[in-house]
Amino acid sequence: MTDAIAFIGTGIMGRPMAGHLQRAGRRLRLSPHRSGAPAELVAGGAEIVSTPAEAARGAGTVILMLPDTPDVERVLFGPDGVIEGLAPGATVIDMSSIDPIATGAFAARIEAAGCDYVDAPVSGGEVGAREAALTIMVGAREPAYERVLPLLQLMGARITRVGDPGAGQVTKVANQIIVALNIEAVAEALLFAAKAGVDPAMVREALLGGFASSRVLEVHAQRMIDRTFAPGFRIELHQKDLGLALAGARALSVALPNTAGTQQLLSSCVAAGQGDSDHSALITALEQLAHYRLDGGGDEAE
Amino acid sequence: MTDAIAFIGTGIMGRPMAGHLQRAGRRLRLSPHRSGAPAELVAGGAEIVSTPAEAARGAGTVILMLPDTPDVERVLFGPDGVIEGLAPGATVIDMSSIDPIATGAFAARIEAAGCDYVDAPVSGGEVGAREAALTIMVGAREPAYERVLPLLQLMGARITRVGDPGAGQVTKVANQIIVALNIEAVAEALLFAAKAGVDPAMVREALLGGFASSRVLEVHAQRMIDRTFAPGFRIELHQKDLGLALAGARALSVALPNTAGTQQLLSSCVAAGQGDSDHSALITALEQLAHYRLDGGGDEAE
Repeated sequence: MTDAIAFIGTGIMGRPMAGHLQRAGRRLRLSPHRSGAPAELVAGGAEIVSTPAEAARGAGTVILMLPDTPDVERVLFGPDGVIEGLAPGATVIDMSSIDPIATGAFAARIEAAGCDYVDAPVSGGEVGAREAALTIMVGAREPAYERVLPLLQLMGARITRVGDPGAGQVTKVANQIIVALNIEAVAEALLFAAKAGVDPAMVREALLGGFASSRVLEVHAQRMIDRTFAPGFRIELHQKDLGLALAGARALSVALPNTAGTQQLLSSCVAAGQGDSDHSALITALEQLAHYRLDGGGDEAE
Repeated sequence: MTDAIAFIGTGIMGRPMAGHLQRAGRRLRLSPHRSGAPAELVAGGAEIVSTPAEAARGAGTVILMLPDTPDVERVLFGPDGVIEGLAPGATVIDMSSIDPIATGAFAARIEAAGCDYVDAPVSGGEVGAREAALTIMVGAREPAYERVLPLLQLMGARITRVGDPGAGQVTKVANQIIVALNIEAVAEALLFAAKAGVDPAMVREALLGGFASSRVLEVHAQRMIDRTFAPGFRIELHQKDLGLALAGARALSVALPNTAGTQQLLSSCVAAGQGDSDHSALITALEQLAHYRLDGGGDEAE
């Protein structure tokens, strides 16, 4: 087994993350998932192979940074998948944000092959990835966590082991529930205030520092007020994440009423062609219901 | 007109607030609303009168700190109400948290009598009142605001003029919407995580500092984890405040779907005899739906 790292998924997030590992002297092996191999990683000495199995062969660590649950499943267990090349004792780190329930099954299969499975989803977006400032929520057994921590520290600034394999994805879902519902809360409050004739910027200002304070009140409320809906974090991705929450909740028999309602508002945004907007554009679904815009504009159809 | 301040409503909040004014050398005139006059205010020289009209007679400033909209209406405009004693040029400051729509009407009647109306609801609770650290959201015309600001500064630490009369109550409602919905968000997220087998204390720890950060995640999530539901801020009062939000939203034709749903969860808490618990006990309504407790306990009925 070598100290090479197989890194699969070098898109918007994975590309800068892999770059941090390479600059720290780690040898990368890439099996390009959708787009080609990033030029700077190739120039930095990354080895390009053609399948996940080949990338994993002899690698001590396999890192995945993929869009969704089926991608991870295919790369790990599909034809020419990671598991075909994985040597006993190797560690798979899935940094994608995927289904916590499926993650439990993936971890069991990897562990049955004599390897360690670590789920380590991130928050902090593209900026966090570029600046190695990601928040990383880790599900891992303790010895595996100790072993991968130095790698994670090259990519993240706030790293917490929250439990055994699967716990990282559960925590990421919890994060996405809170962020979406906090955005919806701020949207309801600002829309109420604006329609009652009060400047939403003054409301935001008055409430910062009190019990209504949140990162969302700081960041997303300002985007709503300025109507700057360039992502940031895309509505479509947050819709996917709330979908994971609701599927998980169903499997666990937990009722999440506001998550369910908020998911419907995100669906309305997608219907309006806003899937690529920042999630703060969630407010436009409420504006649609009220036939009123936060900036005082009326219904476009009128 | 004298520099005396008529202070009506010296309950849990009003009592320490009036004390700050008195200690700063302001002469108080009290017309006890429900309970008797607080002994320390009497000992400090407060004059006790028997009706709001008498309290207001010749006073330059009348401050109200009352439970709900009907109380404010009765004290201002009922038999022997403030308006019967109010001299032109005096200022009424309503620091209660009441209906923004009604406030608009109250302000119009007070202004028609040649006086100023200032709505200045607070957040920060009993501790904030005692420590003169309240957040105060002020609706006032600019000259009236300049005049009352030194008084407000004796009671609050963060004071913002958000607009003309009525705007303060609108902002307070916005505050209560956000706080309730942020509590509900944290409750859904922690319950989901706990039922998925992850320690909610680790989830809170991992998410603080990221985009899910809020005062509610700091304070109320900890109360949920510790199951310390002594108020704090009582469920029954928050239920009242969301009632104001929904009545206002109906009058304004604004849809507030998550506020409406969360109000129903508060009603469930009241049905369970928890009206006097801290609003973080909102999580128990979700626990009831899931037949599962955050601390791993099952349904009590099982």
